[in-house]
Amino acid sequence: MKSGTLYLVPNLLGVAAPSDVLPERTIAIARRLQHFVVETPKVARGFLKTLAPERTIADIAIIASEPAAPALAQCRAWLHEGHDVGVLSDAGCPGMADPGARFVTLAHGLGTPVVPLVGPSSVLLGLMASGFDGQHFTFHGYLPSKPAQRDEALRQLERQVRHHGATQIFIETPYRNGALLDALAKTLDGDTMLCVAQNLTSDDERILCLPAGQWTSAARQRFQGKAPTIFLIGRAQRGD
Amino acid sequence: MKSGTLYLVPNLLGVAAPSDVLPERTIAIARRLQHFVVETPKVARGFLKTLAPERTIADIAIIASEPAAPALAQCRAWLHEGHDVGVLSDAGCPGMADPGARFVTLAHGLGTPVVPLVGPSSVLLGLMASGFDGQHFTFHGYLPSKPAQRDEALRQLERQVRHHGATQIFIETPYRNGALLDALAKTLDGDTMLCVAQNLTSDDERILCLPAGQWTSAARQRFQGKAPTIFLIGRAQRGD
Repeated sequence: MKSGTLYLVPNLLGVAAPSDVLPERTIAIARRLQHFVVETPKVARGFLKTLAPERTIADIAIIASEPAAPALAQCRAWLHEGHDVGVLSDAGCPGMADPGARFVTLAHGLGTPVVPLVGPSSVLLGLMASGFDGQHFTFHGYLPSKPAQRDEALRQLERQVRHHGATQIFIETPYRNGALLDALAKTLDGDTMLCVAQNLTSDDERILCLPAGQWTSAARQRFQGKAPTIFLIGRAQRGD
Repeated sequence: MKSGTLYLVPNLLGVAAPSDVLPERTIAIARRLQHFVVETPKVARGFLKTLAPERTIADIAIIASEPAAPALAQCRAWLHEGHDVGVLSDAGCPGMADPGARFVTLAHGLGTPVVPLVGPSSVLLGLMASGFDGQHFTFHGYLPSKPAQRDEALRQLERQVRHHGATQIFIETPYRNGALLDALAKTLDGDTMLCVAQNLTSDDERILCLPAGQWTSAARQRFQGKAPTIFLIGRAQRGD
């Protein structure tokens, strides 16, 4: 029997109409698939219901991607049985900040087709919106949470920008956004460019790109909410 | 007068139906905008015609992003006059491998809103499809073209993967895909994972992810065409 295909299905980033951030093809495939490996089943069911209110969500086979062993076994069985399987994250693109990548490795090992679908990514949207170098950039995920190590990491990223110009991108647990912003304002050189993008693709999307020295406490206040946020330091691209 | 908004409008990556890779909102905004800064005017006109066959393309104000000085002056004037302006690349997301970022810097300097729209990115789709670490990755753009420097760069990227696990992503001018693949097979350790993704989002999309030692000349042959290709080396994520 022909094995199934593994589809990587992006989710919304926050409160947004699906047609604002997902192409028709992504929506159509997500509506058609009957088997999913997902980060959080409850979140996945909500997303699938939004895409297809008429669908009986209980009829869709959904397994959590953690713990890994049973999820991998189930995914392998589905693919072997010829079922197409969707990998779905709680937000944005699967495989970027969730356990999705291991199912891709599984599919490659089985020789099963892997199809990445288009959707929103805060890393990419933040990079586009920053005006920083988009030819050379690094995404670091989360920085260390302990202040001393975090500040040392920030200084190191700043050196990367200064010496190579490459954009440095990172995220923080939303309830620590305020603390990270304060640390950035305190630690970075006043003329190092800092871009912060919050609630990307939502109605209250906000993007601010300023030298660190101009990130006043009033400016920082605007981004302190517990909302998904992406942080970028880099060199502002100009025409000269 | 209220200044305009700068929209970052992703283009298709190759031959694909717009609705396969662009959300309705991206298409609607691209169809509505009357002012564009674009990488190549002819390519932009073709794209806008595809999105809106009924539109008289000659009525749309389009300026090439190079040379920079007149393009920046025009973009500034449009925004001042209250016009919304689209930034459009020849393929994929503006600001990533084109001169788009400088217009974002201009808009931030003017205090004009910047709105990044969702669309396809070969860097992101390649990363998703690789099964490599998506929490830590670097995009390098083009590697050096001279063989000795290129091979040294490859060895350096391989060390990054070995020591930190971070995914390393790069591109090549399409007519040199074959030479780069041969260099990868020759230079990398046999067990270093190499993923190559070509014609992403097109009907002839192909993705292969294998240890470098298993990239036989037959495998490499399949990717030698002059087609847009993304190269990734990294650590395959597993469940253990």
